[in-house]
Amino acid sequence: AHIVTLPGDGVGPEVTAVAVAVLEAVAEHYDHEFSFEEHPIGGCAIDATGEPLPAASLAACRKADAVLLGAVGGPKWSDPNAPVRPEQGLLALRAALGVYANLRPLQVHPALAKLSPLKNEKLAGVDVLFVRELTGGAYFGAKTRTADTATDECKYTEAEIERVVRRAFALARERRHHLTSVDKANVLETSRLWRNVVQRLAAEYRDVKVEHQLVDSMAMLLLTQPSRYDVVVTENLFGDILTDEAAALAGSLGLLPSASLGDGTRGLYEPIHGSAPDIAGTGVANPTGAILSAALLLRHSLGLEEEAQCVEAAVAHVLEHGPRTRDIGGHAGTAAVRDAVLMAVE
Amino acid sequence: AHIVTLPGDGVGPEVTAVAVAVLEAVAEHYDHEFSFEEHPIGGCAIDATGEPLPAASLAACRKADAVLLGAVGGPKWSDPNAPVRPEQGLLALRAALGVYANLRPLQVHPALAKLSPLKNEKLAGVDVLFVRELTGGAYFGAKTRTADTATDECKYTEAEIERVVRRAFALARERRHHLTSVDKANVLETSRLWRNVVQRLAAEYRDVKVEHQLVDSMAMLLLTQPSRYDVVVTENLFGDILTDEAAALAGSLGLLPSASLGDGTRGLYEPIHGSAPDIAGTGVANPTGAILSAALLLRHSLGLEEEAQCVEAAVAHVLEHGPRTRDIGGHAGTAAVRDAVLMAVE
Ligand SMILES: CC(C)[C@H](C(=O)O)[C@@H](O)C(=O)O
Ligand SMILES: CC(C)[C@H](C(=O)O)[C@@H](O)C(=O)O
Repeated sequence: AHIVTLPGDGVGPEVTAVAVAVLEAVAEHYDHEFSFEEHPIGGCAIDATGEPLPAASLAACRKADAVLLGAVGGPKWSDPNAPVRPEQGLLALRAALGVYANLRPLQVHPALAKLSPLKNEKLAGVDVLFVRELTGGAYFGAKTRTADTATDECKYTEAEIERVVRRAFALARERRHHLTSVDKANVLETSRLWRNVVQRLAAEYRDVKVEHQLVDSMAMLLLTQPSRYDVVVTENLFGDILTDEAAALAGSLGLLPSASLGDGTRGLYEPIHGSAPDIAGTGVANPTGAILSAALLLRHSLGLEEEAQCVEAAVAHVLEHGPRTRDIGGHAGTAAVRDAVLMAVE
Repeated sequence: AHIVTLPGDGVGPEVTAVAVAVLEAVAEHYDHEFSFEEHPIGGCAIDATGEPLPAASLAACRKADAVLLGAVGGPKWSDPNAPVRPEQGLLALRAALGVYANLRPLQVHPALAKLSPLKNEKLAGVDVLFVRELTGGAYFGAKTRTADTATDECKYTEAEIERVVRRAFALARERRHHLTSVDKANVLETSRLWRNVVQRLAAEYRDVKVEHQLVDSMAMLLLTQPSRYDVVVTENLFGDILTDEAAALAGSLGLLPSASLGDGTRGLYEPIHGSAPDIAGTGVANPTGAILSAALLLRHSLGLEEEAQCVEAAVAHVLEHGPRTRDIGGHAGTAAVRDAVLMAVE
C-alpha cells in the first residue's frame, strides 16, 4: 500500500512521524509492504511554494491508497484577512479527494476519566461516533464581501445529504443501531431538506432507531446525557462545533483521531488537534490522536481490521499503564509514548 | 410602566403568571404602577388566528415599555415543513422590535453545583454574560428551496455587527473588563468582517481586554475553562448553540433568563427554556428563569436596579433554602416556589 504523508505545521511533523513508525511496525509484524511519500501542505507549503496545497502534493494524494495528515496553521500565517491561508490547503484537499464523511469516534478511556471536565458518572459508557459532512455547507458555499457587507451561503443538495447519511446509517448497523441526526430545522431551509432526507432513508433502514435533535439542544444533551448517543450525523459547521465540544469530554484533544472517507477506499486521516504552536518542537506533543488515525487508516482504507485493532489495543495499554504525555497528566515526551506503543505492537 | 405579556405555549403561561405575580409584588412593595396586557403568540396564536404573531399582538408590543414572553411551540405544531410554525412568531417579533442584543447571563448557584454535569472544581467562579446577535445572520438571510437543493444565506453588515459589539464592550466595562469575541474567521467571510469590526472597536475600548476565539475551540473552552470568561459576544447561530451548551452547566435550563435589547429601553424578556410540552399543565415547571427574566426587565427596560436586585436576592434565597422544583432535585411545584419568592420579595 502507498501512503502519502502531509505532516504540515507545528506539532504536525512530530506526531506524523510517530504514526508512520507505528505503521512501519505493523507492516513488519504482519508482513505487509507500506511505502511512504511526504509532501508539504499548509503554512510550510505557503512558505515553500506560495500555495497552501501545491499541485504536486495534491497529485500525490490522488495516487495514494491513503493520506495521513498532521496539522496545519500557526501564528505566522494566522491573519484571517491574508489572501492565502494554511486552512485553505486542508479545505481544498478535502474537496479534491471527495472525502465527504468525516468520522470522529469518541470514547473516554476509564483511566483518563479524571481528566475530563465532566463528572465521572456521566462518562460511564460514552461511545459516540460522529459523522460530519465534510465537503459542503457554508465551508464551500459562495462568499461575498463589499466594503460594509459580507455573506456566506450554506448550500446542500439532496445527493450530498443522502450519501453521508447513508454512510451514517451503515455505521449505525455495525454498532448499536441508533442514529441521531442533528439540524436546525426550525430555522434553516438546508436543515429542513436534511431532515426530509433522513426521514426518507429511515424507511430503508428500519432496524436503526432514528432520532432528530436541534443543534442547540444537542449541544446541551452531549453534556447531560452523553452515553445516550451512538452514531451522530450532521452537516459540516454543526459537526465542527459539536465534535470539538465532545472532544473536550475525552480529557485531551491530543487523544482523538479522525477519518475522512469518500466513495472509494482512499481516505484522509488526521488527529483532530491543531498545530499547537506553543509546544511545537519541544518533544511533548501527544502522538495518540495521530496513532489512532493510523489505526483508522488500516481499517478503512487498507481493510486491515486485525492490524487496526492491534494498534488500538497497544494505545489502550499505554494509556492505562503509561508513559503519559503532559496533556493527560504525565511527564513523558512524544518519543517515550512512541516507544511504548511500538513495544506493545510487537 | 406598561408591560405586554405573551405567555405562548406549553409551560409558558404557567411561568409567565409567576413572573407577573413577582412584578406585582415589586410594584406594591416599592410603590410603582405596572399595568399588564396579555396577547397570543406561537402555536396558540396559530390556532386562534392562523398566524404565529397576530398584528394585534405586535402592535401591543410596540406600544409597551417591555415585553415578557413565556415560550412557543409544541408537538401539535412541530412539523418543520408546515408553512406556518410557532417559532416564526418569535423570530418575527425579535426582528420587528429590533432587539438585536440578546443577553444571557450564566452563573452557577453553589447550592446547585451538584446538578451540573461539570466537575465542581470547574464551576467555581463561573460568571459569564453571553451577548448573542439576535436579528441577523442565517436566521434572517435569504433562503431558497428547489426540488433537490436548499440554501441559507448568512449576511451581516458592519453596522449590524458594530451595534451589538458596542453593547458587549459597554457591558464588559461594567463587569470584569474582558470581552471574548467568537467567530469562524478561518472559514467564513461574515466572520472575517465580524473580527475586523471587533478589532477596530477594541481601539476605542482600551480598558477592555479583547480575545478572539474560533467557535469550535470555544465550544471546548466553555467546558475546560468556564471561569475564564466574562462577556462573550457572537453572531446569532453560534450564540444559539453556545448559550445552550453553557446553559447545561447551570444544572437546569429552567433557571436561566434572557433579555433582548435594541437601541431604546424597550426589551423582550424570556426564560431560555422551551415550552416543555411533557410537563405542561402539571404544575411542576420551574418558574425561576421567568422570574429572573422579570428582574432583567426591571433593570434594563425600567431602570429599577434596586428592585431587580431584590428579585434576584429573593430567587437566590429560595434556590439555597428551597422549595425546589423537580428539575433541580426537589419535590415542590411551581406554586410553592412562587409563594416562597413572593415572601422573600416582601
Ligand atoms: C482548520 C479548520 C478549517 C478545520 C475545520 O473547521 O474544518 C478544523 O477546525 C477541523 O475541524 O478540522
Ligand atoms: C425557538 C428557536 C427559533 C430559538 C432560536 O433558535 O433562536 C431558540 O432556540 C432560542 O434560542 O431562543
